Amino acid sequence: MEILYLAIAAGVVALVFAVLLTVQILKSDPGSEEVQAIGRAIQEGSMAFLSREYRLLAIFVVGMTIILAVFIDLDVLDKVPDTIAGDNEGVPKTAIAYLAGAIGSALAGFIGMTIAVRANTRTTVQAQRGLNSALRIAFNSGTVMGVSVVGIGLIGITVVYWIFKDANIIAGFGFGASSIALFARVGGGIYTKAADVGADLVGKIELGIPEDDPRNPATVADNVGDNVGDVAGMGADLFESYVGSIIATIALAAVGAGALGVDAPIEFHDNLFILPILIAAIGIFASIIGTFMVRTGEGANMGRLLWSLRTGIFGAGILVLIGTAISVTMLGLDFKLFWIVVVGLVAGQIIGTSSEVFTSYEYRFTRNLAETAETGPATVIIGGLGLGMLSTVVPAIVVVVAMWFANDLAGTYGVALAAVGMLSTLGITLATDAYGPVADNAGGIAEQAHLPPEVRERTDALDSLGNTTAATGKGFAIGSAVLTALALMAAYSVVVDNINEAKALEEGVAFVKISFDLSNVDVLMGLFVGSLTPFLFAALTMQAVGRAAMAMVNEVRRQFREIPGLLEGTADADYARAVDISTNGAMKEMVVPGILAVAAPIIVGAILGPEALGGLLIGSIASGFLLAVMMANAGGAWDNAKKYIEAGAHGGKGSEPHSAAVVGDTVGDPFKDTSGPALNILIKLMSIVALVFAPIFL
Amino acid sequence: MEILYLAIAAGVVALVFAVLLTVQILKSDPGSEEVQAIGRAIQEGSMAFLSREYRLLAIFVVGMTIILAVFIDLDVLDKVPDTIAGDNEGVPKTAIAYLAGAIGSALAGFIGMTIAVRANTRTTVQAQRGLNSALRIAFNSGTVMGVSVVGIGLIGITVVYWIFKDANIIAGFGFGASSIALFARVGGGIYTKAADVGADLVGKIELGIPEDDPRNPATVADNVGDNVGDVAGMGADLFESYVGSIIATIALAAVGAGALGVDAPIEFHDNLFILPILIAAIGIFASIIGTFMVRTGEGANMGRLLWSLRTGIFGAGILVLIGTAISVTMLGLDFKLFWIVVVGLVAGQIIGTSSEVFTSYEYRFTRNLAETAETGPATVIIGGLGLGMLSTVVPAIVVVVAMWFANDLAGTYGVALAAVGMLSTLGITLATDAYGPVADNAGGIAEQAHLPPEVRERTDALDSLGNTTAATGKGFAIGSAVLTALALMAAYSVVVDNINEAKALEEGVAFVKISFDLSNVDVLMGLFVGSLTPFLFAALTMQAVGRAAMAMVNEVRRQFREIPGLLEGTADADYARAVDISTNGAMKEMVVPGILAVAAPIIVGAILGPEALGGLLIGSIASGFLLAVMMANAGGAWDNAKKYIEAGAHGGKGSEPHSAAVVGDTVGDPFKDTSGPALNILIKLMSIVALVFAPIFL
Repeated sequence: MEILYLAIAAGVVALVFAVLLTVQILKSDPGSEEVQAIGRAIQEGSMAFLSREYRLLAIFVVGMTIILAVFIDLDVLDKVPDTIAGDNEGVPKTAIAYLAGAIGSALAGFIGMTIAVRANTRTTVQAQRGLNSALRIAFNSGTVMGVSVVGIGLIGITVVYWIFKDANIIAGFGFGASSIALFARVGGGIYTKAADVGADLVGKIELGIPEDDPRNPATVADNVGDNVGDVAGMGADLFESYVGSIIATIALAAVGAGALGVDAPIEFHDNLFILPILIAAIGIFASIIGTFMVRTGEGANMGRLLWSLRTGIFGAGILVLIGTAISVTMLGLDFKLFWIVVVGLVAGQIIGTSSEVFTSYEYRFTRNLAETAETGPATVIIGGLGLGMLSTVVPAIVVVVAMWFANDLAGTYGVALAAVGMLSTLGITLATDAYGPVADNAGGIAEQAHLPPEVRERTDALDSLGNTTAATGKGFAIGSAVLTALALMAAYSVVVDNINEAKALEEGVAFVKISFDLSNVDVLMGLFVGSLTPFLFAALTMQAVGRAAMAMVNEVRRQFREIPGLLEGTADADYARAVDISTNGAMKEMVVPGILAVAAPIIVGAILGPEALGGLLIGSIASGFLLAVMMANAGGAWDNAKKYIEAGAHGGKGSEPHSAAVVGDTVGDPFKDTSGPALNILIKLMSIVALVFAPIFL
Repeated sequence: MEILYLAIAAGVVALVFAVLLTVQILKSDPGSEEVQAIGRAIQEGSMAFLSREYRLLAIFVVGMTIILAVFIDLDVLDKVPDTIAGDNEGVPKTAIAYLAGAIGSALAGFIGMTIAVRANTRTTVQAQRGLNSALRIAFNSGTVMGVSVVGIGLIGITVVYWIFKDANIIAGFGFGASSIALFARVGGGIYTKAADVGADLVGKIELGIPEDDPRNPATVADNVGDNVGDVAGMGADLFESYVGSIIATIALAAVGAGALGVDAPIEFHDNLFILPILIAAIGIFASIIGTFMVRTGEGANMGRLLWSLRTGIFGAGILVLIGTAISVTMLGLDFKLFWIVVVGLVAGQIIGTSSEVFTSYEYRFTRNLAETAETGPATVIIGGLGLGMLSTVVPAIVVVVAMWFANDLAGTYGVALAAVGMLSTLGITLATDAYGPVADNAGGIAEQAHLPPEVRERTDALDSLGNTTAATGKGFAIGSAVLTALALMAAYSVVVDNINEAKALEEGVAFVKISFDLSNVDVLMGLFVGSLTPFLFAALTMQAVGRAAMAMVNEVRRQFREIPGLLEGTADADYARAVDISTNGAMKEMVVPGILAVAAPIIVGAILGPEALGGLLIGSIASGFLLAVMMANAGGAWDNAKKYIEAGAHGGKGSEPHSAAVVGDTVGDPFKDTSGPALNILIKLMSIVALVFAPIFL
């Protein structure tokens, strides 16, 4: 078990590194009083949101902890055979693990956001000096988030596993992480887009004032939104994928031994258990080293900066592969497992790159989309939706090929391990992702503090770089979510078999493995309902954004109407009121989709049985995956088509095509930042609910 | 086999009825010289399109006939066990059946369109007299289409079955019908929307001239589009569903005997064979009687007209149920089968009604959508997409429940029979559907011929009634497509089992039934690829519409620029050139999606095997179904939200909200009339390709 020490050590190193970076960020110049005042408003708004969100979630988490303790741990329905329950009964192990997962996820989001809302003003200040020092602060802030997520994740899993020594129990940890992630993504997503859409509709479209203009009452809410949605939400999402993939791999270790065709001595099993944890630990060190490879010498241009970020990611990837090769050899495992990790890492990169190709205006897809703006908003929308749908092809094929390859080499254990491989360098990939919102915020602050235009230009450059890495990151988040969800589904079927086998033994009847045969009408019904859930979930979240944005529009209009001198710039807007509107909207609107996601698998499992539940999971994964890719890429392409026009194409800012592109961008906002990303969590959450609640359905 | 005489008699009655109605329509006043001239332009455009389309399709059909003859009938790869092939080998039975299906489908489309382009001017003329006589002509034209489709379909299946006496061979007939349907839907859909979008973008949005204004060069093309897309395309679509459901039921008759738990004497099998044909024959008589129940006394208002149409449909449904109850009893079959037909009919009505509730501005969904137009086009688009996604819930649940019920009563045979039940009254449901485009055309002609405004008001009223029945019809088309596709998928698995069993017997090995277990990575890969195909197909067709519309926009702009006096109304537009642009666009653009649909199942079956192919079918059915419902309902709701505003809400015509709603309507055009409906055919076509080519993959 020395390996568990190593894992905890890696986690601690990650957290220490986060603390060191935090100190470095905080030491940096916080800027003029005006900049600090704006920063404080964003900090307060963000913290107010997070504290309200966490208080609401606390109710849900406590309720779910009790449900788990009663129905799973204490097994009051007496569903778990004694041979499996062992001495578990009586101790609320799953409930404890769940609580730990929820707290871990909340903590990761909290840390990331706390730093981000302090790094934003400091990035603005550094942007007055130059591009590179600004990038450094923003990237460091992202790194704090990245390493905190992996550090807390790995420590959490390891400790829970160490205490309970039971693969089934750590699923509870994943469920805890999922619950928080879902609400964080949905709540944060609704918040940020209500503010963004609300600010744009009145400010840019109706009144024609620029983005982030201090006269716009929704400006601060918009900045807060970047933090609660894109930082805390994204962190919680990937925290969940990260722990989910490791948990699934551990749960499938026993099956893996069979698939690898060995006569599985016990230690071989143990080593298959250990491998994902070890790869994760190696990944942490590799990511930290990778961040040092991100060198930003003064005078570098954008292409070089992007290349510098990539060097860090690729460097970390290569280090992970070297470490994995050594580990697999030293643990005496089949070298095939190394190739699976390669497949996972490469698949993640291809999916990410494909997102970039479809959404960056360096490539023809988005340029063609910008051209459709010449014939008005309708063709922009048709073009963007078509682009989004078309962009599902590469990710789907890559996932299918990766799945085939991993499964061929090591069965479902291989699929889970591929997800672990894909996510092994999360510490640094998340850093490149989470720095974007900080740069975005910095630009907003520069605008509000009336700093010279070159500051805004520099932050815009950083923001645009951030958009590229965010596109890659989104593709990556979806790809890893699918593999993780598939692995969790496989783990679910193993758990069902184990329980059924024990029951059959107890009752002296023959044991039959569960089958998810599509000729079985139960499976088919589950699959249809499962395919439906992402559509329903996306509909609910989009409509939620619509309603919350409408409330914001009315508030902004009201302020312009009722506050004399606001439009002329002689009076101040009531930012706090706008922040409040967004917060209330998000709190109210996140409940229904959240409950739906948790309840759907439980209801289907309870009413239609475990076979139908398997169908539900696969159906939701397949349709959720495609819908998520479509929404993310359509949204990204609309955003960048607008930016391309703003950069001077097709008449530039203020032209008819520009207005058309703004419509596309506004539609894309809830696509790419609310509904799309929330689908990632939906599919993972439903799989883990099935895994945790499996005994109930048998 | 007397029942086969009855079936053919029913088919002949249907065709005779069609001829009588045609004579009646042609006897009616063709109108002034000006009206007739416009009518001739539409006729010529429509026929030019159809003849080019059919010539292109002839190449495809001949090629496919040869492929079927060589690989299936002559079995050159020697894939079919001799015990199954029997004396089939050597005679290109499947190829002949295929050819018959293709010709039948083309014929049905041709007849429907030939009448529609003659009924349109006559409807305009009658609209000068009153609402009801206009409805009568238009509805009679729709009825010709409806009864031709069912008449040709039933005669075709019966004759092919009579000659070859082989359930596998008639699948070829379904495949022939599918091939034509796919190209007709896609080609017609691209044509109609390129013309519509092109006409609206320049005419309504850029120049602010009214819809159907004779100055707009795309006006005739727009009218032609209604005929080639909404008449010929819709007819081919439902022809395919109709024959597909009967074919699947016949193919599943043997399994049905098992599911009904009887010791199946041979005649019982035979009766299960006969039942779907009998119900179809009863349905034809019931539909014809139903059309006489559509009474339109002078002075009736719109509500009464709608009620009158419904009376016809419900009346026909009740007659079918009475006939089915008698048939089931007389054939000595289990009375459960009667309840399955009830379920099919009721499910179809619920799905249709749900489409109406989501898309009619009599209900709150579309009214709320109209309200989002107050905040501009972006919120209209977000709202419409949300509405479309939300509207998938009811149809999905209804299909799941109907599937469960039918399967519980009679296995997969039950599912197929439910589809037959749903489609039994197609003769009249299609009539209520196909009359809409005629009314739409009549309005366009009235506008172009400068008839008094009350004529246009009357045709608008008919058109609006047509929109309501079209929404119901679209829901109905999708629901029946899903049940049909599921039944065809079940038939595919039966065929695979039969071949495998025969092979196992030949080779003296144990026979194992095919399993589509989702734990099998092949099935899972197939499912992912299958879920992907509708997204890809929708993307390709939407982009095709975008490109074709862009060409039309440029042509219309060119004419306004280069023809002096056109905008002032002193010079004539070059309508023929615009018709040509749409035709060329449709011809060019329909090839790739068409080939994709046929090739995808063959490629997956050949490379990944028959299990993966099963996964592909289910994946495509699930995601295609939801996407189709979403697109159809979002499109319908946008259309009617615009009409609601035009009727005076939110500022009425010419207001800002109206422009926003027009954007929604334009996006909705390819949604509801091209991509959405084409998905129906995609899922059926892929299933039938799998069924016909099954031997190749084993």
